Amino acid sequence: MTFPTHVRLIEVGPRDGLQNEAQPISVADKVQLVNALTDAGLGYIEVGSFVSPKWVPQMAGSAEVFAQIKHKPGVVYGALAPNMRGFEDAVAAGVKEVAVFAAASQAFSQRNINCSISESLERFVPIIEAAKQHGISVRGYVSCVLGCPYEGQVSAQQVAAVAKELYAMGCYEVSLGDTIGTGTPTATRTMFEAVGAFIPREKLAGHFHDTYGQALVNIYASLLEGINVFDSSVAGLGGCPYAKGASGNVATEDVLYMLNGMGIETGVDMDKLLLAGEHICNVLGRVTGSRVAKAREG
Amino acid sequence: MTFPTHVRLIEVGPRDGLQNEAQPISVADKVQLVNALTDAGLGYIEVGSFVSPKWVPQMAGSAEVFAQIKHKPGVVYGALAPNMRGFEDAVAAGVKEVAVFAAASQAFSQRNINCSISESLERFVPIIEAAKQHGISVRGYVSCVLGCPYEGQVSAQQVAAVAKELYAMGCYEVSLGDTIGTGTPTATRTMFEAVGAFIPREKLAGHFHDTYGQALVNIYASLLEGINVFDSSVAGLGGCPYAKGASGNVATEDVLYMLNGMGIETGVDMDKLLLAGEHICNVLGRVTGSRVAKAREG
Repeated sequence: MTFPTHVRLIEVGPRDGLQNEAQPISVADKVQLVNALTDAGLGYIEVGSFVSPKWVPQMAGSAEVFAQIKHKPGVVYGALAPNMRGFEDAVAAGVKEVAVFAAASQAFSQRNINCSISESLERFVPIIEAAKQHGISVRGYVSCVLGCPYEGQVSAQQVAAVAKELYAMGCYEVSLGDTIGTGTPTATRTMFEAVGAFIPREKLAGHFHDTYGQALVNIYASLLEGINVFDSSVAGLGGCPYAKGASGNVATEDVLYMLNGMGIETGVDMDKLLLAGEHICNVLGRVTGSRVAKAREG
Repeated sequence: MTFPTHVRLIEVGPRDGLQNEAQPISVADKVQLVNALTDAGLGYIEVGSFVSPKWVPQMAGSAEVFAQIKHKPGVVYGALAPNMRGFEDAVAAGVKEVAVFAAASQAFSQRNINCSISESLERFVPIIEAAKQHGISVRGYVSCVLGCPYEGQVSAQQVAAVAKELYAMGCYEVSLGDTIGTGTPTATRTMFEAVGAFIPREKLAGHFHDTYGQALVNIYASLLEGINVFDSSVAGLGGCPYAKGASGNVATEDVLYMLNGMGIETGVDMDKLLLAGEHICNVLGRVTGSRVAKAREG
């Protein structure tokens, strides 16, 4: 049984973590968070989202955040750009990497982005073309890969079909998201085996939610499948909109604790990461979602 | 990669979960909890502890609890009996299975039970002899198998040495406990490989604490080592005395969720288990430690 020697952690806290927060968070606090994550050694930080402020008011200041953060050489500062307008705003803000997102479930695609899966993929074609011209790389997300809040089960073949299209279009990496956190390790492995038949495993990432406490074990199951890129959120920022009070994103600290224990390199400093999490939790006035942070506070 | 088709869950909530609760819990509430766990289909419930009420006041009513619970045929109702006096009280209460506990760390043994590891093992000899005469089976616990709050690292060889002695003395099963929850999957596997060199794996159990969020992934790693008996606590009852506010025992609901997802049989009904957890959390006035329970409430 072999594991990757190195894992790349994609920190989604400033975007995926904060986007559903009801209270306004200042640009200064967001900048502070991104800078603290940079200092902690993260190599990829998803900073914001270029979407209509009508839909996601919390992400309205993304251009200002990009303008004010410290840009450390070698670190990727990414942003969501779900449509052409958002892409153009991202380019204007100096963003060098964008992400697009599709769903593996037809019902989720309709309810979440108001179009079918194939319509959403068609929209990405001109974005990815324009990105190539600007030398901007594009990451693809697929949501609901291990279950859908509306459809229930989602087949691994369906996930593979959507992921394959995103990869064929030019996404350099496809992140497979267990949006509702219902996945367990066997399903995780089956899903990666299905997707891995079409896309090299080093081009895949896992994005696990801890709603049912399964995120870490699913990451371990993914490591066994040769996956070595994982999305996570400092302090577990970002609840689950489908189960109030429950966890959403897996906490970066808890993933790092496991990887450190396994001797897998990430380049991330635990103490600095804990400080970043503690600070943003104080700003938000909320309890950390990281078990490691809770244990260290005790 | 193969997994056991069946897992035996050892429910430790009524004993390990409640023993550190500061507020008094009535015998009636304990009986209600044990009966609800019986109804949920658990095959082994650790009901109480026959120790000096001076040391563990919460367990003072264990004999009354044993007298009042429903005894379902085929279900084992166990109790801790750390010394001869406790063993005799357990026998008088009609207990058919007892457990003894040793530590893998010398410092923990001294501070927790006031004697060296070898002294603690010597004390178990007459208990196990007496148990044989009464037709009572004895389960052995080893604590601090993946770390000690006083010594830090604990070697897998040291764990194996203690476990081997308990097994040789006549314990039919040895439960290996990550008392402070610092274990990660690689260390878990190394530990089971070391112990498995001396004791058949079907005679071993895993007892993981979720203090750093690692319990489920360690259980998965254990399943990969052929271990198929795990201790857990409904609603994650029982905090971690070494990290205030942090989790202790892994929640039975969360373990069951993973095993159900993997198609591994346990005989436990999730809905009834959730009800048992909800009820005792209401009695204690505390929030459940189970992520599954939190998500279901949402």
